[in-house]
Amino acid sequence: MRLSQFHLNTSKETPADAELPSHRLMLRAGMIRKLAAGIYTWSPLGLRVLRRVEAVVREEMQRAGAVEMLMPSIQPRELWEETGRWEKFGGQLLKLRDRKEAEFAYGPTHEEVVTDFARNELSSYRQLPLAVFQIQTKFRDEIRPRFGVMRAREFLMKDAYSFHLTAEDLDREYWNMYAAYGRIFERLGLRFRAVLADTGAIGGSASHEFHVLADSGEDAIAWSDGSDYAANVELAEALAPAAPRPAATESLREVETPAQRTCEDVAALLGIPLARTVKSLALVGEQGFVLALLRGDHALNEIKLRKVEGLGEYRMATEAEILEHLGAAPGFLGPVNPARPLQVVADRAVAAMADFVVGANRDGYHLAGVNWGRDLPEPAVVADLRNAEAGDPSPDGKGTLAIARGIEVGHVFQLGQKYAEAMGATVLDEQGKARVLHMGCYGIGVSRIVAAAIEQNHDEAGIRWPEAMAPWRVAVCVINPKNDPAVAAAAESLYSELAAAGIDTVLDDRGLRPGQMFADMELVGIPHRVVVSARGLENGTYEYRSRSADESEALERAALFARLAPKTA
Amino acid sequence: MRLSQFHLNTSKETPADAELPSHRLMLRAGMIRKLAAGIYTWSPLGLRVLRRVEAVVREEMQRAGAVEMLMPSIQPRELWEETGRWEKFGGQLLKLRDRKEAEFAYGPTHEEVVTDFARNELSSYRQLPLAVFQIQTKFRDEIRPRFGVMRAREFLMKDAYSFHLTAEDLDREYWNMYAAYGRIFERLGLRFRAVLADTGAIGGSASHEFHVLADSGEDAIAWSDGSDYAANVELAEALAPAAPRPAATESLREVETPAQRTCEDVAALLGIPLARTVKSLALVGEQGFVLALLRGDHALNEIKLRKVEGLGEYRMATEAEILEHLGAAPGFLGPVNPARPLQVVADRAVAAMADFVVGANRDGYHLAGVNWGRDLPEPAVVADLRNAEAGDPSPDGKGTLAIARGIEVGHVFQLGQKYAEAMGATVLDEQGKARVLHMGCYGIGVSRIVAAAIEQNHDEAGIRWPEAMAPWRVAVCVINPKNDPAVAAAAESLYSELAAAGIDTVLDDRGLRPGQMFADMELVGIPHRVVVSARGLENGTYEYRSRSADESEALERAALFARLAPKTA
Repeated sequence: MRLSQFHLNTSKETPADAELPSHRLMLRAGMIRKLAAGIYTWSPLGLRVLRRVEAVVREEMQRAGAVEMLMPSIQPRELWEETGRWEKFGGQLLKLRDRKEAEFAYGPTHEEVVTDFARNELSSYRQLPLAVFQIQTKFRDEIRPRFGVMRAREFLMKDAYSFHLTAEDLDREYWNMYAAYGRIFERLGLRFRAVLADTGAIGGSASHEFHVLADSGEDAIAWSDGSDYAANVELAEALAPAAPRPAATESLREVETPAQRTCEDVAALLGIPLARTVKSLALVGEQGFVLALLRGDHALNEIKLRKVEGLGEYRMATEAEILEHLGAAPGFLGPVNPARPLQVVADRAVAAMADFVVGANRDGYHLAGVNWGRDLPEPAVVADLRNAEAGDPSPDGKGTLAIARGIEVGHVFQLGQKYAEAMGATVLDEQGKARVLHMGCYGIGVSRIVAAAIEQNHDEAGIRWPEAMAPWRVAVCVINPKNDPAVAAAAESLYSELAAAGIDTVLDDRGLRPGQMFADMELVGIPHRVVVSARGLENGTYEYRSRSADESEALERAALFARLAPKTA
Repeated sequence: MRLSQFHLNTSKETPADAELPSHRLMLRAGMIRKLAAGIYTWSPLGLRVLRRVEAVVREEMQRAGAVEMLMPSIQPRELWEETGRWEKFGGQLLKLRDRKEAEFAYGPTHEEVVTDFARNELSSYRQLPLAVFQIQTKFRDEIRPRFGVMRAREFLMKDAYSFHLTAEDLDREYWNMYAAYGRIFERLGLRFRAVLADTGAIGGSASHEFHVLADSGEDAIAWSDGSDYAANVELAEALAPAAPRPAATESLREVETPAQRTCEDVAALLGIPLARTVKSLALVGEQGFVLALLRGDHALNEIKLRKVEGLGEYRMATEAEILEHLGAAPGFLGPVNPARPLQVVADRAVAAMADFVVGANRDGYHLAGVNWGRDLPEPAVVADLRNAEAGDPSPDGKGTLAIARGIEVGHVFQLGQKYAEAMGATVLDEQGKARVLHMGCYGIGVSRIVAAAIEQNHDEAGIRWPEAMAPWRVAVCVINPKNDPAVAAAAESLYSELAAAGIDTVLDDRGLRPGQMFADMELVGIPHRVVVSARGLENGTYEYRSRSADESEALERAALFARLAPKTA
């Protein structure tokens, strides 16, 4: 491609309303243009990158045995009624009416449509398993679309669905897709982790998210330095301390804490580590008032808390309820000497503590030297209530957890029979008996990957594309071609030879000043830059620079081609 | 591809509600499945064909210098207000509101969005010309969606747009695109014609439609057997007869035609050719009552009639108006002896007639032997009012016109400054002066091409794909593989060798009976079929049959490969 014939339109100005580096850089490089909130045009440059991702995703899905199809974006309400999601999906479902007032939605996902396809197409176990995928535009009417294409309303997604006679066969396909996802992100050159995910309301039996690691990621991921273990922090188990609870060494005493309402303040006043304090959360669950206890330095994990029996739909207690059950105001609460008999749910770490500090249930006071069994009953329920933290032992017993930030770009899910059951998707088995299909779904946010890759790979000068995602592998920059025909000819010839060698190259023949050209190529993130100049021609060399290197090198022709040839994997 | 791992699902039953062969065959072959009226899922088989078309379109657009981009499907109302099309586009525009009640449309076309892109991106003449394209899903809310994907509501379109400083440069690009379109349809292997089209309400300066020729086509096309001339019949000029008007030979006489109200009936009664009669159409235009005259055997072309001055908004006259101006009832009208002075508009053919027959303006009577100048004044206006017909001389003076039926699959259009003017899309020229952009648009109905190709290429057994569009080039059918391992192995080996030779092949390893296999491959339209059987193995031959041939041939390996290799163009 000659850049003079390509619509490249970069900008030095940093867009005011773009918060994330990827959003800023995609706008500055001219990859995307906003049409409306969360709705973007992909410019020629942006589309080149999007297509790179699409191609890798398509190849690996095909290699995994899935066949491509294309379902409509506009879906009739009736199908969504069958699964109850017309209402349950919520405000993200963009609903519309056609000229005959029939109701439709712009598909945010295709479980209903593909299950309808399956129930019409599949009648016999002989047609199973079936795995299909599509790469298609979706719409989710986000309340707060932001971060450019990272959280857009209209976006490009790869969604795959598989159908099986048995749960075992679904499980086999699930791991097949899991492996394909690994290959996809590896080929794209991204640092990623597959993490255990919460199956949530859908209630399937297994689920993994694939995250691109980046400091700006919205999700926290706990991963082990000693094994493959990784999980969304929402889900990562915090093991009970390995050592048994120490024996009590202190006696119980009340301490005055007139203005100390937080564990931090109390620890500071007493000159003790925060990890010696316990915070009390007053809740109301199905059985009434509950006090949940967490170590002062630990963070509550609401998803875990809701898994405790009776707390699935918990709410925070009101001040009146707190006063009634504990006899004190928030800030001075604890499990010792409540006003009424108390249900206590203790985090595993709290259950293993001795000589700890809690609120005294008396305004302005805390208790120190508290010990289970002596000063209060052993906790009735001990559970994992906290977020896993860096330094925790890995739940699989191998290594220590670290926490990373991630951007979710893929999700694999064993849906089981949920949709097939709701929509009556069955086949006849070998005995001629109707069997409800088992189903998996497997999504990749194709357009989001573009933004996530930039979050992971950028510097002050711009984007640093992994080679597989770069709009072009090589940029040939020509110095002063209009006034130096020999240089122009040499650049043309190099460009042709690189193209002939199958090396995807862009020729910057726009005739800009070198500084402008170089800045553009760095902003746009081309991995390899070659400068053709009069001085180089004299020396018989090209000035080569990798996007990741600080310095240029003068390379002769053979060395240059060796450097630019794609590495065979 | 092994068919056992591909979801092929054919049917012998003819779908009841499918009127066109393409619709029936696409359903029977399992290429498409209806989700809602005018909304179809493309199955894996259907998508393979769609992607073939897409690939050829993309390559030729790129070869023509257009760069690909991707605009959103959801477009804000505000842009459509700028061009007045939010109202004017009519019911086909699918309008919707998001959760914040902002109004949008699902794009049926992208002139507004691309002009908005252009006015933001383009500031200098140096950035011109720019030609962009996208291949993208569109929605048009047809009142009567039908014929499957031929007239669907959701469909796949290639739309391209170009921007220019001058009308001359637009004209250059227009013919560049025109040539690219020709290459596209040639490469797809379709018989097509580029025809002059009416620029209609958009009022651009030039427009051609590209039609795939098929008997079932909705459009009539007039084309010359002696030149490249072709035009939609709506537009094709009917020349004045080459010979001058003959001299009068008959005298005017009234003939009784008590029940003869049509030219056909009158000609039959008088025993004369229909071409000797003249029919009178009573109209009301801007200047009042007008009588338009057409030869009895000619068909009125309303578009041409509306181009006559004063008739742009004509309507048919009422019976009262007819009685007032002519003094007779419909069926006996004519230009001779009207009740009031009359405006006559004669078709060119009528103006050249002598001794013709018209209504007598007296109920139950016609006049015969009518001659211009003698029995009535020469017509005030002579114009081309009729449809061109087979046998007419070509308007370019070369050859004779024939009429063909066509399916419109492409359209190129010089929009001029209409959209750029309305939306303020300007650039600075070399003198620093703001200039309104000139714009062209170029559409191809990608999904419609699939149906049109079938209309043109099918037989009793099914689809006969042109090679470039076939889902696979070659089908290898294996006879009885489960019971004959040698045959199965030979088929596998042939399949691998064909794949290695770059010949796109499907292996029918489903283990069906030969008749079922062959019927499927014919229905699905694979151009080349190779049967691997025990008998063939014994003889060292393969049974080869072209989809277009009646008989099979026994070919040895080398001859087979020679036959299957793609012809170099």
